Amino acid sequence: METLRLRIGENDMVVIRIEVAVNLQRLFNPDSIAVIGASQTEGKIGYEAMANVTAFSGSIYPVNPSSSGMVFGESFVASVTEVDDTIDLALLCVPGPVVPDVLEECGEANVGGAVIYAGGFAEAGEEGERLQERVVEIATEHDISLLGPNTSGFVVPSEELFASFASGVERIRAGNVAVVAQSGGVAHVLAFQARRENYGLSAMVGLGNRANVDFREVVSYFDADERTDAILLHVEGTDDGRGLLETCRDAETPVVSYKVGKTDVGDFAESHTGALTGEHELYMAGFEQYGVLTVESTSELIDAGVALGRSPTPSGLNVGVVTAQAGPGIIIADRIQRAGGNLPELTAATQERLEELLPGITYSGNPVDTGRPMPEFGEVVSAVAEDEQVDIVLVYELFEEALGFPLNKLDGLAEGVDKPVLFATDGMEEDMTDDLASLRAANIPVFTSPERGAEAAALLAEYAVLSDAADRTEVNANV
Amino acid sequence: METLRLRIGENDMVVIRIEVAVNLQRLFNPDSIAVIGASQTEGKIGYEAMANVTAFSGSIYPVNPSSSGMVFGESFVASVTEVDDTIDLALLCVPGPVVPDVLEECGEANVGGAVIYAGGFAEAGEEGERLQERVVEIATEHDISLLGPNTSGFVVPSEELFASFASGVERIRAGNVAVVAQSGGVAHVLAFQARRENYGLSAMVGLGNRANVDFREVVSYFDADERTDAILLHVEGTDDGRGLLETCRDAETPVVSYKVGKTDVGDFAESHTGALTGEHELYMAGFEQYGVLTVESTSELIDAGVALGRSPTPSGLNVGVVTAQAGPGIIIADRIQRAGGNLPELTAATQERLEELLPGITYSGNPVDTGRPMPEFGEVVSAVAEDEQVDIVLVYELFEEALGFPLNKLDGLAEGVDKPVLFATDGMEEDMTDDLASLRAANIPVFTSPERGAEAAALLAEYAVLSDAADRTEVNANV
Repeated sequence: METLRLRIGENDMVVIRIEVAVNLQRLFNPDSIAVIGASQTEGKIGYEAMANVTAFSGSIYPVNPSSSGMVFGESFVASVTEVDDTIDLALLCVPGPVVPDVLEECGEANVGGAVIYAGGFAEAGEEGERLQERVVEIATEHDISLLGPNTSGFVVPSEELFASFASGVERIRAGNVAVVAQSGGVAHVLAFQARRENYGLSAMVGLGNRANVDFREVVSYFDADERTDAILLHVEGTDDGRGLLETCRDAETPVVSYKVGKTDVGDFAESHTGALTGEHELYMAGFEQYGVLTVESTSELIDAGVALGRSPTPSGLNVGVVTAQAGPGIIIADRIQRAGGNLPELTAATQERLEELLPGITYSGNPVDTGRPMPEFGEVVSAVAEDEQVDIVLVYELFEEALGFPLNKLDGLAEGVDKPVLFATDGMEEDMTDDLASLRAANIPVFTSPERGAEAAALLAEYAVLSDAADRTEVNANV
Repeated sequence: METLRLRIGENDMVVIRIEVAVNLQRLFNPDSIAVIGASQTEGKIGYEAMANVTAFSGSIYPVNPSSSGMVFGESFVASVTEVDDTIDLALLCVPGPVVPDVLEECGEANVGGAVIYAGGFAEAGEEGERLQERVVEIATEHDISLLGPNTSGFVVPSEELFASFASGVERIRAGNVAVVAQSGGVAHVLAFQARRENYGLSAMVGLGNRANVDFREVVSYFDADERTDAILLHVEGTDDGRGLLETCRDAETPVVSYKVGKTDVGDFAESHTGALTGEHELYMAGFEQYGVLTVESTSELIDAGVALGRSPTPSGLNVGVVTAQAGPGIIIADRIQRAGGNLPELTAATQERLEELLPGITYSGNPVDTGRPMPEFGEVVSAVAEDEQVDIVLVYELFEEALGFPLNKLDGLAEGVDKPVLFATDGMEEDMTDDLASLRAANIPVFTSPERGAEAAALLAEYAVLSDAADRTEVNANV
């Protein structure tokens, strides 16, 4: 998406958006897949990629001129040009130097998208750069969208499409958050962490060298994807920083960015995806200016996806905190304020309601502290959630087996009050498993430490401020 | 411990340490326990505390004048004065206003230590302050060490001593790290997080209001405890900040502090453990000046314990990083440098050795990047660990089922090279469970994200600098 902004008069502006004709449909939503360099030898990329892709319901063609017979129940084909079917997506499990020839064949066969797993391209010095240029030329000529080179691929769990060679990816669950990482390795780190927290993804994409598919194309694609409610970026650096920023700004889906490389790791980074991580401060200033949320670790990025993907849009930065223990409550209050969120005073009406619920309540300011988990805890949460001063609710309690979590009160509460309601806890893992699963099944964003809950609440507060600013811009543009 | 420092001549100093006669032996290492206010009613603190304490092998006496019969196989006693045995420790499961009378009885019965769970003391306004003063007077008169009031208690897992009313504490494992938290709730947060990571504790203590047992007494106690190799503090604020700092400085066991309350949560904090969190900057400056390590979250605090408790003392701040994936490697390199660690160049000899192991290795600077996990990965780790430029080793790889982790190479490596060797990973939880358990059983510090591994390595680097400085001070003092 390109955006033109024309100023009209003193304060008004016309915004014109132009779709750019980069179509990633055949790459990310194919009907048929060729695995070029498919192998019968376990441990080889051509074997692992084949193993992972077999779950896909569309047609799958293992391609290898020097193999015969079957692999994972499919017959080998000598060349992609010999397949009597339109191939949407080719997974290139071949060494770098062979890629140009293979890609030419893909072009002949009218392949729409290709994943290049191999390294040895722009990240590997001048010769590699020339190889990558050659590959881009061929792709441009034949209109092929290239993921990579130097990536571990992508997955779209809802389609059971696991176009990665890493082990375990076929168990990444379907969800509503898209992970778009510059590094294939980090894409997998994020997917595994999401899975560890029992959350699903709409997609996981490792961009690698971004030969002709860069952040802007992928972010635009998932912005338009109905299954995606939040987009999480891992950014090392790109030649097209402005494009990245503009695409994020124009996306209707919330975008969160984890920019790495504050210190000088330039030499190593360049050897990685052919990108300099430099100019970190410029990126961070850019994200702020363009209204893109930022975080500082992989786990915060996953938590941001959980919070944004499972919450109504907050209408302000006022967080109401309910805690069953003061110590974690202080950590949370401190953390929210440090991250720019606000802890408003509750209304007199709410305070009265709390006093009625729990006469002599430990602390009925904000945080509200009940002193211990108790049967009335869910009622206390409702009272705070319904307070008109509160835009976002964060609940914390240590798990107590005798009481469990107040699932009945939490289930549907966020929808009822049309505010995010986040839940954070700690406890004995095995005691909480079922109760945590029930909370997650009820679409409640759950975090397992006071700090993680607080950071997520603060991120939503920041999002409220940003989307409010964006709304005002939109209003101006529409005048 | 009190420390006197006498300057002799220009550069020399004599250090005299004086043990203060606060003896927490009977509190933390009792032979017999009375549970005062023991109850047969599930959910009551007197029931939960009784349930948790039954695992203890010493004598247990449930005390309640209005109960008869048995509870958890022990016969009720009407008063602690009626027990025909020396009671070391009393757990006071009674409401605040009753505490003075009960404590008088404890004094008569020559009880050595008492845990006061109830709130309503110094944290609850003037009346509570007077109540606490009264309690301290009684304790002083009878020489009773008081944990609390307003705490959830403590545990010493190696003794199966679980003097807390929270559920699940009886499954906290024995280990070599002591958690000392100002808040009882946060003590449990930390213990549960350690358990989630499959690490044990030598003790978990919630200080609460610190009536007459404060940080300095508890830190001194666990500094002298043979089972404790690292002490983790959660600090909100104390009247005796200097005492805390001096005790930490003088401890031979490494101490790490998590100071909360950077922003103004004073009102709520005061309502908690009767302490102001204020003067955060003063605390942070004090920790730095007194050479106390600091972290910024509960999970970092646990990770610090894992790293310090399972590593030889590092001799410098040079970290050698080995990664099987570049993206996480960049995150790690950046993070270590941001936190003050250094990534030295490897020696020419090591680089040659790496080239021999893996001709055309992806990147043989520091981080060393093997591009993928591979059978030679363990050899690469050994080569870096043996490099004389390297003081601390951090290894990262995504789990690959076909290869597993290089346990054989990692087992004993830290002892062999006498350097910390940390391991960080991500992957499908259920695939890694056994392999992670084996690594942990081999005493290898394991972290499950690139950032957590990097922060732990950087903390060890900081520790090396601090302990080096401390050694020099010691040398001066001994001249």
